[in-house]
Amino acid sequence: MGESAERDNAIDKAGFEKEYPKLRTEFLNAQFDLIESKRFPVILVFAGMEGTGVIDALTNANTVLDSRHVVTFALDTPTQEESERPRMWRFWRTLPPKGEIGIYAGSWYTAPLTDRVLDKISDARFEQQLDAIKRFESMLAAEGALILKIWLHLSKDDQKKKLKKLEKSERTKWRIEESLWGGSKRYRKVKSAAEHMMRITGTDQAPWIYVNAANKYYRSLTVGKTILNAIRTHLEQARAAEVSPQATPVSIPDVNRQTPLNEMDLSLKLEREDYKKKLSHYQNRLNELVWNKKFKKRSLVLVFEGNDAAGKGGSIRRVIEFLDPRRYRVNQFAAPTDEEKAQPYLWRFWRRLPRRGHIAIFDRSWYGRVLVERVEGFCSEAAWRRAYMEINDFENEMAEAGSIVIKFWLAIDKDEQVQRFKAREETGYKRYK
Amino acid sequence: MGESAERDNAIDKAGFEKEYPKLRTEFLNAQFDLIESKRFPVILVFAGMEGTGVIDALTNANTVLDSRHVVTFALDTPTQEESERPRMWRFWRTLPPKGEIGIYAGSWYTAPLTDRVLDKISDARFEQQLDAIKRFESMLAAEGALILKIWLHLSKDDQKKKLKKLEKSERTKWRIEESLWGGSKRYRKVKSAAEHMMRITGTDQAPWIYVNAANKYYRSLTVGKTILNAIRTHLEQARAAEVSPQATPVSIPDVNRQTPLNEMDLSLKLEREDYKKKLSHYQNRLNELVWNKKFKKRSLVLVFEGNDAAGKGGSIRRVIEFLDPRRYRVNQFAAPTDEEKAQPYLWRFWRRLPRRGHIAIFDRSWYGRVLVERVEGFCSEAAWRRAYMEINDFENEMAEAGSIVIKFWLAIDKDEQVQRFKAREETGYKRYK
Repeated sequence: MGESAERDNAIDKAGFEKEYPKLRTEFLNAQFDLIESKRFPVILVFAGMEGTGVIDALTNANTVLDSRHVVTFALDTPTQEESERPRMWRFWRTLPPKGEIGIYAGSWYTAPLTDRVLDKISDARFEQQLDAIKRFESMLAAEGALILKIWLHLSKDDQKKKLKKLEKSERTKWRIEESLWGGSKRYRKVKSAAEHMMRITGTDQAPWIYVNAANKYYRSLTVGKTILNAIRTHLEQARAAEVSPQATPVSIPDVNRQTPLNEMDLSLKLEREDYKKKLSHYQNRLNELVWNKKFKKRSLVLVFEGNDAAGKGGSIRRVIEFLDPRRYRVNQFAAPTDEEKAQPYLWRFWRRLPRRGHIAIFDRSWYGRVLVERVEGFCSEAAWRRAYMEINDFENEMAEAGSIVIKFWLAIDKDEQVQRFKAREETGYKRYK
Repeated sequence: MGESAERDNAIDKAGFEKEYPKLRTEFLNAQFDLIESKRFPVILVFAGMEGTGVIDALTNANTVLDSRHVVTFALDTPTQEESERPRMWRFWRTLPPKGEIGIYAGSWYTAPLTDRVLDKISDARFEQQLDAIKRFESMLAAEGALILKIWLHLSKDDQKKKLKKLEKSERTKWRIEESLWGGSKRYRKVKSAAEHMMRITGTDQAPWIYVNAANKYYRSLTVGKTILNAIRTHLEQARAAEVSPQATPVSIPDVNRQTPLNEMDLSLKLEREDYKKKLSHYQNRLNELVWNKKFKKRSLVLVFEGNDAAGKGGSIRRVIEFLDPRRYRVNQFAAPTDEEKAQPYLWRFWRRLPRRGHIAIFDRSWYGRVLVERVEGFCSEAAWRRAYMEINDFENEMAEAGSIVIKFWLAIDKDEQVQRFKAREETGYKRYK
């Protein structure tokens, strides 16, 4: 970044005051169109060298915008509820719905960058985290979000001056006290880590915009105009792409390939007496493990998928039979609610992830995207294709947070399925299926 | 309770096993109707003497019910996010939506009862808290919820036996370790506090059901049948009350009464220069106060109501102009979402209450119920009439939790309003209003 971002960009107060009211009007109009269209969310990430006035920039943004449709987050230290779940949970829970603007001062970049600057993580680990972020943002973009990331830059000399000024005022000195990176002491280190970060995560869909923050008028106008143009362009593109995704059912070739499901021995069985003994044994064992002290640091995610009538409900009932119901929740997903529809596909599953010491059971799950939705053509091919990667990332997040993730596919053949459907019709209490 | 609940109710295993499958079928059918109707939520509170097997009862309930539409909560120690908000926030956030069942093992009764048993609060304070609970439940009932509260009882001798048994088994001894009330040591104290509690909070809409828990078969069947009958009855009543509430606009008598709004001097004004000086002074002062350490223990709730064009938006903009946007959120409420519609009226406001150290600003608020909704006839007379009490309780909860609640009514007269409407049509960036 250095060169261009450090160049002197002088705008004086008069110039600013001439342009600002126009910008404000245009901004409110663009935001109005965004709110009305409810087409996509806008996600703004603010970061920068210490002393660049990230907070001033935010304050500015919030007075320019209609603040009723903007939420600003400063996610630095996770709360207890957040720290008991995967790293990205706190960001998922705050994602703005379509039509709204979410501004992140503390964002998914804060922890990796700070950890790298303070040498808490290696370069390799840093890159790994950045890769995960890149995929996260690419998912958001594929879901339609407009993502802009603003890096506010300062030369070393300018930073020194700014920090001194901030320290002097009673009203701003807390910013120095809250410093994560120790002010200008680590200037080079921050600069090089940030450059690396932007190189890896700066994409067409989620670009980094470097802004020289030495002159506050220049900073405000540049940031404002950039965001405004991006919203305008995105609105036009969304309107142009109005044609609904060609959601045609996918015909899956019925080749008799060797797949795990084809090769499965469906004749395997357990005798009733043996089953009863073993069931009771393992139910007890599971109950003991859940009460084990070590489980307080883990959580358990169980996914049940399979053919209709394969016995998902019955299996789940046996799993929970002796468990303390305060520790688990069984989740099933009907049609998404308004709030879920205004968010990326995986959002409804993220909100059901268990805290430490707890169990989440999913009777059908996020795999619906690549099963029923794919087969029935409920989503576009692009959507289910990218879901494979997104699901891997999602489950990876859980595993990294110490969740034990176990997925069951319950298989039966066609004849068995027909028989069970018939049996259900006859049994009273199963009619609700 | 004593007498009746302690009477011997012998049901043996054989009797239980004969009745249980039938009960289960009926239960699933009733729950299916509930889910399909989406008419009301079912709220079950379980409490009882230590050793009564509240957890077994829950486990039972969960295997009888379709667990995908049941969530069980054990809310004892609040999490950090919960403890930074009003006492009832954690219950509001877990309320089951219409069609679902919420089971509370740790409920709104846990803290008051335990505090009373351990002499942490006086009888007077206990009663005050019970009164608040009673009003909370009456609100839930008025919103349509079915509320049942089960008190599992044991005689002193039975309790001693049970506790001894629980202590012996590796699998259950944690229950003794988790004991809040110290087992049978405080038997009399618990019994008398619980009796008092049930006397005050047992109502027709939210009755307490005393069940002798000495015999587990009797306990399970009684609890099961009681809940089943209640759901069936409630479903029928809801169906009978199908006729939509007569929502006719209310004509408010236009008598020239002396009211604060009528008596307001609308000619008061501030000169521009004076205004600018004072505005800047108070904005700075507000900013300082928000950064004051003491504010970390408080939160601020600002409500703006008033005539259209009275200047709510402008006032809010001036309040937030110099505030750190990470500390506040401006809330506005359009049509409720699906998820909000499936909950009591105040739910959407509860979910926006700020954590400690934060500010929530409401551009229009819960007063909509007694303003626009009342005037336009969007809700029944019964609904807005009870809203006055509910709002008082709601704001009281906030104040008790240390929130500073300030409400502004911005008033203009008719002529001024007309003029402002005209001016707006001409100004570009205000068109979105």
